[in-house]
Amino acid sequence: MNFSHSAKTQGLMKQVRDFLENEILPAEPAWLEEVGNDDPNWQEWKAPATMEALKAKARSAGLWNLFLPESDFGAGLSNVEYAPLAEIMGTTLIASEVFNCSAPDTGNMEVLVKYGNQAQQDRWLMPLLDGRTRSVFFMTEPGVASSDATNMEATATLKGDEIILNGRKWWSTGVGHPNCEFGIFMGVTDPNAPRHAQHSMVIVPMNTPGVTIKRMLPVFNLYDKPSGHGEVWFENVVLPRENIIAGPGRGFEIAQGRLGPGRIHHCMRCIGAAELALRLMCERSTQRVAFGKPLALLGGNGDIIANARINIDMARLLTMKAAYLMDTVGVKGAMSEISQIKVVAPQLSLDIIDQAIQMHGGAGVSNDFPLASMYAQQRTLRLADGPDEVHRRQIAKIELKKYLKK
Amino acid sequence: MNFSHSAKTQGLMKQVRDFLENEILPAEPAWLEEVGNDDPNWQEWKAPATMEALKAKARSAGLWNLFLPESDFGAGLSNVEYAPLAEIMGTTLIASEVFNCSAPDTGNMEVLVKYGNQAQQDRWLMPLLDGRTRSVFFMTEPGVASSDATNMEATATLKGDEIILNGRKWWSTGVGHPNCEFGIFMGVTDPNAPRHAQHSMVIVPMNTPGVTIKRMLPVFNLYDKPSGHGEVWFENVVLPRENIIAGPGRGFEIAQGRLGPGRIHHCMRCIGAAELALRLMCERSTQRVAFGKPLALLGGNGDIIANARINIDMARLLTMKAAYLMDTVGVKGAMSEISQIKVVAPQLSLDIIDQAIQMHGGAGVSNDFPLASMYAQQRTLRLADGPDEVHRRQIAKIELKKYLKK
Amino acid sequence: MNFSHSAKTQGLMKQVRDFLENEILPAEPAWLEEVGNDDPNWQEWKAPATMEALKAKARSAGLWNLFLPESDFGAGLSNVEYAPLAEIMGTTLIASEVFNCSAPDTGNMEVLVKYGNQAQQDRWLMPLLDGRTRSVFFMTEPGVASSDATNMEATATLKGDEIILNGRKWWSTGVGHPNCEFGIFMGVTDPNAPRHAQHSMVIVPMNTPGVTIKRMLPVFNLYDKPSGHGEVWFENVVLPRENIIAGPGRGFEIAQGRLGPGRIHHCMRCIGAAELALRLMCERSTQRVAFGKPLALLGGNGDIIANARINIDMARLLTMKAAYLMDTVGVKGAMSEISQIKVVAPQLSLDIIDQAIQMHGGAGVSNDFPLASMYAQQRTLRLADGPDEVHRRQIAKIELKKYLKK
Amino acid sequence: MNFSHSAKTQGLMKQVRDFLENEILPAEPAWLEEVGNDDPNWQEWKAPATMEALKAKARSAGLWNLFLPESDFGAGLSNVEYAPLAEIMGTTLIASEVFNCSAPDTGNMEVLVKYGNQAQQDRWLMPLLDGRTRSVFFMTEPGVASSDATNMEATATLKGDEIILNGRKWWSTGVGHPNCEFGIFMGVTDPNAPRHAQHSMVIVPMNTPGVTIKRMLPVFNLYDKPSGHGEVWFENVVLPRENIIAGPGRGFEIAQGRLGPGRIHHCMRCIGAAELALRLMCERSTQRVAFGKPLALLGGNGDIIANARINIDMARLLTMKAAYLMDTVGVKGAMSEISQIKVVAPQLSLDIIDQAIQMHGGAGVSNDFPLASMYAQQRTLRLADGPDEVHRRQIAKIELKKYLKK
Repeated sequence: MNFSHSAKTQGLMKQVRDFLENEILPAEPAWLEEVGNDDPNWQEWKAPATMEALKAKARSAGLWNLFLPESDFGAGLSNVEYAPLAEIMGTTLIASEVFNCSAPDTGNMEVLVKYGNQAQQDRWLMPLLDGRTRSVFFMTEPGVASSDATNMEATATLKGDEIILNGRKWWSTGVGHPNCEFGIFMGVTDPNAPRHAQHSMVIVPMNTPGVTIKRMLPVFNLYDKPSGHGEVWFENVVLPRENIIAGPGRGFEIAQGRLGPGRIHHCMRCIGAAELALRLMCERSTQRVAFGKPLALLGGNGDIIANARINIDMARLLTMKAAYLMDTVGVKGAMSEISQIKVVAPQLSLDIIDQAIQMHGGAGVSNDFPLASMYAQQRTLRLADGPDEVHRRQIAKIELKKYLKK
Repeated sequence: MNFSHSAKTQGLMKQVRDFLENEILPAEPAWLEEVGNDDPNWQEWKAPATMEALKAKARSAGLWNLFLPESDFGAGLSNVEYAPLAEIMGTTLIASEVFNCSAPDTGNMEVLVKYGNQAQQDRWLMPLLDGRTRSVFFMTEPGVASSDATNMEATATLKGDEIILNGRKWWSTGVGHPNCEFGIFMGVTDPNAPRHAQHSMVIVPMNTPGVTIKRMLPVFNLYDKPSGHGEVWFENVVLPRENIIAGPGRGFEIAQGRLGPGRIHHCMRCIGAAELALRLMCERSTQRVAFGKPLALLGGNGDIIANARINIDMARLLTMKAAYLMDTVGVKGAMSEISQIKVVAPQLSLDIIDQAIQMHGGAGVSNDFPLASMYAQQRTLRLADGPDEVHRRQIAKIELKKYLKK
Repeated sequence: MNFSHSAKTQGLMKQVRDFLENEILPAEPAWLEEVGNDDPNWQEWKAPATMEALKAKARSAGLWNLFLPESDFGAGLSNVEYAPLAEIMGTTLIASEVFNCSAPDTGNMEVLVKYGNQAQQDRWLMPLLDGRTRSVFFMTEPGVASSDATNMEATATLKGDEIILNGRKWWSTGVGHPNCEFGIFMGVTDPNAPRHAQHSMVIVPMNTPGVTIKRMLPVFNLYDKPSGHGEVWFENVVLPRENIIAGPGRGFEIAQGRLGPGRIHHCMRCIGAAELALRLMCERSTQRVAFGKPLALLGGNGDIIANARINIDMARLLTMKAAYLMDTVGVKGAMSEISQIKVVAPQLSLDIIDQAIQMHGGAGVSNDFPLASMYAQQRTLRLADGPDEVHRRQIAKIELKKYLKK
Repeated sequence: MNFSHSAKTQGLMKQVRDFLENEILPAEPAWLEEVGNDDPNWQEWKAPATMEALKAKARSAGLWNLFLPESDFGAGLSNVEYAPLAEIMGTTLIASEVFNCSAPDTGNMEVLVKYGNQAQQDRWLMPLLDGRTRSVFFMTEPGVASSDATNMEATATLKGDEIILNGRKWWSTGVGHPNCEFGIFMGVTDPNAPRHAQHSMVIVPMNTPGVTIKRMLPVFNLYDKPSGHGEVWFENVVLPRENIIAGPGRGFEIAQGRLGPGRIHHCMRCIGAAELALRLMCERSTQRVAFGKPLALLGGNGDIIANARINIDMARLLTMKAAYLMDTVGVKGAMSEISQIKVVAPQLSLDIIDQAIQMHGGAGVSNDFPLASMYAQQRTLRLADGPDEVHRRQIAKIELKKYLKK
């Protein structure tokens, strides 16, 4: 075992950290001002020029598409190499996008790299890789418990040379962004096929007739402008058959492969958020005084700080191990670990953010600090990509396999 | 011991519950529409006519100023009688105001009833009792840890027949309301007096020169329109000496008395919120199905529901006991219990709301259900009126008193 | 609502507390010495004379059979009146027996009072009421998960005028006591009857042929000498039909009624144990010094003490409410509450005992303090009379009833 | 980063695991029988022949003194190499001793290797390395809070060529073993020296006049026969000056160095115990059925199993990282991590053992399974080698260092 990062990784970590400190953090206020007050009227949202400028700089610095492992298209980093970079990005809200590493584009790019044909790659992947467009993933549905994927009601029906989409999707993240050009839609093609061969993934351009953004959904009252989370209706959306990815019935297979690396990214960003919260907690609690002492030295606050350090370090190690398994034995061999980190990391960051809020007093729930917004954002991760409950179920299933067999 | 409510209380509970179901809940959508999208521009906030109509109805139904115990002015209910009504009000966001029972007006009315002189009562109390005006309490400060009251930096300096206020306050709840007419300001009058005789409480009309609302503060991105939480600056605000309540140096004494009943109200409303969250959790988890079963019957969800029931029932009993002690032995004899409920009730409602969010999936963090807004609102109660940490400190101090003496 | 004990109850509490302090605590060392070193050889266990002397004193002081509500036989206290006495008894290991109020005799006496016929009462109940004999309850079985009562394998087969018992029971508490004269045995009489009419309760004298005590079971290495917890085998134990209580097939009905009051007693004793642990924690942590301060004032210890006070007070109120419901609406109306306290009280006392152990350092796990033995004893209560899991299941079932109907 | 064990380590793990399964587990019943019933009469305790036979086999298999890193004396394994072996040993109570790897002998051997002079090594170290003798460490005291090392009251006073020991020690583990030949005693030599130069470590043969074993201390009623935990009094114990290790005043320095590896060993054994508990939990809960299902599939049991897997894996990674830091940057650079694992690992194993007990029902608290004994043993580790509270304090101190400086 070896717990040190390779020289290559350390070099990249320094580059990303430097870029973040020298370019991104100084530009954040301008970005915020461009975005303006949060509101649900997505039709008027603009893509801030600040972001485009940052992206250009990141790209010319070679810090671009870092998430994309071993391919002709990306930076070619392994999960173990990319994970610590994702953690650093997780310490601000905008860094991932700057490096063209933000969800759901990352997952969509992975899908198109792995399953897309040449035409699909040329038309949809290349602009995404360039950071010229953005995209969305249409999976979750408002009408059913989407934690059980077999509940999916949306359909993708083959008819001659066409495929016809119907259904309602929500929590379609990024759909409000002015640059959002297309989405990947998952729907039932053949309800009579075996359980894991019923669904298809279809590329759907946003301007296709029958596709309607009904509204943006707030997360703890925040609309995440200018990306947003939409509710989108599909009514007899007709697309050519070549928009199907990999072929009809392969939706589950693709979804499965899509989620492994994405969960590692999410979890490492959670850990970055947790480190930021711990830092803010330490700063505030050493600066403010009550009953004659800095808050950090009062009552149980030292325990809170110690436990935060312990839990962050453990969660990071577990996530790095999951990344290592992804790299060495693949997603199948890392199934339990990927579910484990998905349970651990978002809850960890929520706990520490909440404790940081408490040590900030009223300032903690306001927008004078990023804590309340971070809380809202992290809270969704206990639901997205499978709720905690489904992941625990999965872990227990793997654990019990050898015992229940007998 | 007797765990049944008196016939009188049961009658009131029925009246309040019926009014809530027949009048308030049906009017809520109209109120929300009048309020409109949340925004920080308090200067443009309006008092919704829906609320005034509801208040008039409540008053003519005799459900008015229910919180005000044994006095010439109010409903004359004991804490034990009022507490279950506060719980019922806590199941919606607007009910307290409808019955003229919302903070911080309630605390201010109590102060003026108990410590105000005739002139102060005529001028400031009567319109509040009538529900014609609203008010604010200027206590917490942005520059210091307000959990330690001796940190207070604002001053209320005597000069001849006048008293001059200086300082910055924030989390001044209700200051954004168009009807907010005055506040009660707490500041240091004599820093050399004994520790609990340094502060004064002063009535400050909002239109006094030198009083400036700097901005509204969001709570988890929500501005609580049309009441709001303001940051207010006081720069050489000159007021006549007769605006001092009870006399210079009596600020601490008044603050102490003010907080007992208010905490009981807050905690009972928390319990109401927790009951609402549990109900929503049960409704959703019995309606949605995954893996072939209603969510309520899956995995640990039954345990979550059982624990919620247990913890709500325990917290309610403890709060009722604190109310009983307030009624029978007074605030001094109920000191530990009041701190106990202040630690227990907001955390309880937060936990259950969070679990309800989880069982609602994405819908839980959106505004399709009131859960996210409830979470934001309840979260402030772990900070307001003394953070958990200070209350635990107080409870431990009382507990250890007999042991440390030796 | 009224949270004060009646004058009658307060008088009894004083009497019991005085007797405990003046008679029981001073005699405890002598009792311990008579009992001697713990060991599994139950055949050599003796009934300590100290106990018999204490029982005689308690009886002549009128503090006898206090647990037995409204009957010709006992003290006639309601559950609300007896509960606080049980709490006081719970602060020592031996007090319950002194007042003839110890399990499982209490439950057996209740059963015989309520369901026994005249002959059964004369022969078996009277000596128990006199404290001359002790008894045992044969319910739990080693071969199955006894948390599901329908798993029961033991049989009580009718054959002419006789009933024949077969099966293995364990955790038969008290069976090691030299004065243990009989047990109440539960077994399946008619496996084809409706689910709740299959079992019978049978009085089985310990000296009946076919009854064999196989061994005593330790609890965390402690044999609870001189009472003990036995594994007992029944091999073709032939008894006259008149030993059946209430009639064949009524076992479930009797078991149900038996458990309500017993759970209240257990839980109030848990609360007494928790109070003792909190007291020891406060004493130790104010006497020992580290880093220049009494332990009680270091780090998070104040929070631990505060939380202990809060949780004890809440659990006591909930238990008193369950007692109140037992008295006013009966066991059916108190079903959820009885399960609630059974979940809450043992876990509460375990938590506080564990924290007290921690504050005692090495002394805490030794026998210089009663904490480790208390822990062992309380730990069994999360399993006995239904494990936590079954009670939570029951609470959730009751809670969800109105929602699942739809 | 690399999360795989080296080929060397994997080989050793296989050897140790095979030896454990083929030799130790089959011999355990014989060992238990030789030991006999637990009792406090240490004078009559015997060293079981079974153990001596196992030790001889382990030694000839080359599995001997595995814990001793890089020295002329031991196996020369790094902490990273030894740690997984300690985990395997932690799955039984006796394995560590079989491989001559049991505390406190391990720590004493490390001290003598590192600080002992030639004569001390010849006389005291060699027999320990051979497994012919056992030893004890006299540190903790009954009269003070030993969590604060500056509280130490025992003295080691220089007088001419002699050093005179006085004081009372307890929790002197292993002192009851018939082969225990000497202890290392820590006491104050110069109370006026700088804080970390006041204490000395002295080798004290057990048969020195003035050394008295007063009694054995039970842990949750268990005396850990035939090793035991003693209270030992030192009254004017006169020893030659050459029994001082390293020199007067170097006690703290030695104690510091002694604790790093020992804590890693303890924590890896905790993890082994946790794995055993999880295995027992899975076995039992898949074999026993209630309400028509194996317990493992009922209610929240799957969550418990999933969380156990997550928490074990995280704690193991953290402990391996601490071992890695010990190997690469030394005890100073691993200070926070060593405190972190000391907080995490014992609490982890206690939680899982407790949950396993719960899933075993009554069998769990009995001796039919090792769970109750494991619980008792693991509980001491939250106190020994620094209680959790002191380690959290240390972690917070390190974390806050950079913030408090400002």
